[in-house]
Amino acid sequence: MSKRLIPNIVTLANLFFGITSLWLTMESQYKEAAVAILFAMVLDGMDGRLARRLHVTSDFGKELDSLSDLVSFGVAPALLTYGSILNTIGYWGLLIAIIFALCGAIRLARFNVLNIKTHFVGVLITICGPLMAIFVLLSNRLPLEFYVIMSIVLSYLMVSNIKVPKY
Amino acid sequence: MSKRLIPNIVTLANLFFGITSLWLTMESQYKEAAVAILFAMVLDGMDGRLARRLHVTSDFGKELDSLSDLVSFGVAPALLTYGSILNTIGYWGLLIAIIFALCGAIRLARFNVLNIKTHFVGVLITICGPLMAIFVLLSNRLPLEFYVIMSIVLSYLMVSNIKVPKY
Repeated sequence: MSKRLIPNIVTLANLFFGITSLWLTMESQYKEAAVAILFAMVLDGMDGRLARRLHVTSDFGKELDSLSDLVSFGVAPALLTYGSILNTIGYWGLLIAIIFALCGAIRLARFNVLNIKTHFVGVLITICGPLMAIFVLLSNRLPLEFYVIMSIVLSYLMVSNIKVPKY
Repeated sequence: MSKRLIPNIVTLANLFFGITSLWLTMESQYKEAAVAILFAMVLDGMDGRLARRLHVTSDFGKELDSLSDLVSFGVAPALLTYGSILNTIGYWGLLIAIIFALCGAIRLARFNVLNIKTHFVGVLITICGPLMAIFVLLSNRLPLEFYVIMSIVLSYLMVSNIKVPKY
């Protein structure tokens, strides 16, 4: 197998877990859906590093990474949070969840275009999505209001102009 | 409102219908979920033309379009087909559905990188996704085997090297 393929397979595995999370949410298995997002997060932390270590970074890989991130850290956490918690406030809850995913998409599109080397503009979707998944895992300890506020705050932080240092 | 924003708002509306389709699939409202994908298709046909007509095409818009397309025409039709039909064959059905979405992601990433002006390489996800939605609308007239075969065939066509003329 060409070593060029390895990081892309890891990225596709990230997307695989994102879609699996959506399926688990459909099946009302919310804790498992949250864990799938955390698995996707681990894989997302690996693909870029692997590509750089193997000297096989590519534009194709970057595009695939972005696409996977929207599903695993935008759409999957949004529908998980709606399905498990925000649905108690009906359409308002759905709207808040969808806005989270839309802001994630704006964040990703902007990130690909800006291509600044020194820092990120706006908080990363790869931080906000897993955070929502962790909050869902703590759902018996946190009130509904927390989820409403956190969804809105994280949505805002993703599209804000806050500078986040690269590490 | 800046006219620069208009096409991007249409693209976000495409994504909005994609996520709405996933939510409707979660609620077992399969016909409505299929219609949501067709709404997304109509919007997807508008954003690029609108951007060109208003002379506001942008890299940001293209990235946002790709991201939205994966959700509306890759992930949403995949989970709709699984939820409404392919779940009768269990995990095999889920695997076939996920492969459809993964092939869609590969197609989109490749499309953005190749950037060929004269033709497309591989059948467009924006054709394959709505086709699956239409098949779901016809689900009382078509056998299970049809969905299994079509999912696999369309997955292959998206990642194939078939030349599709631009029109």
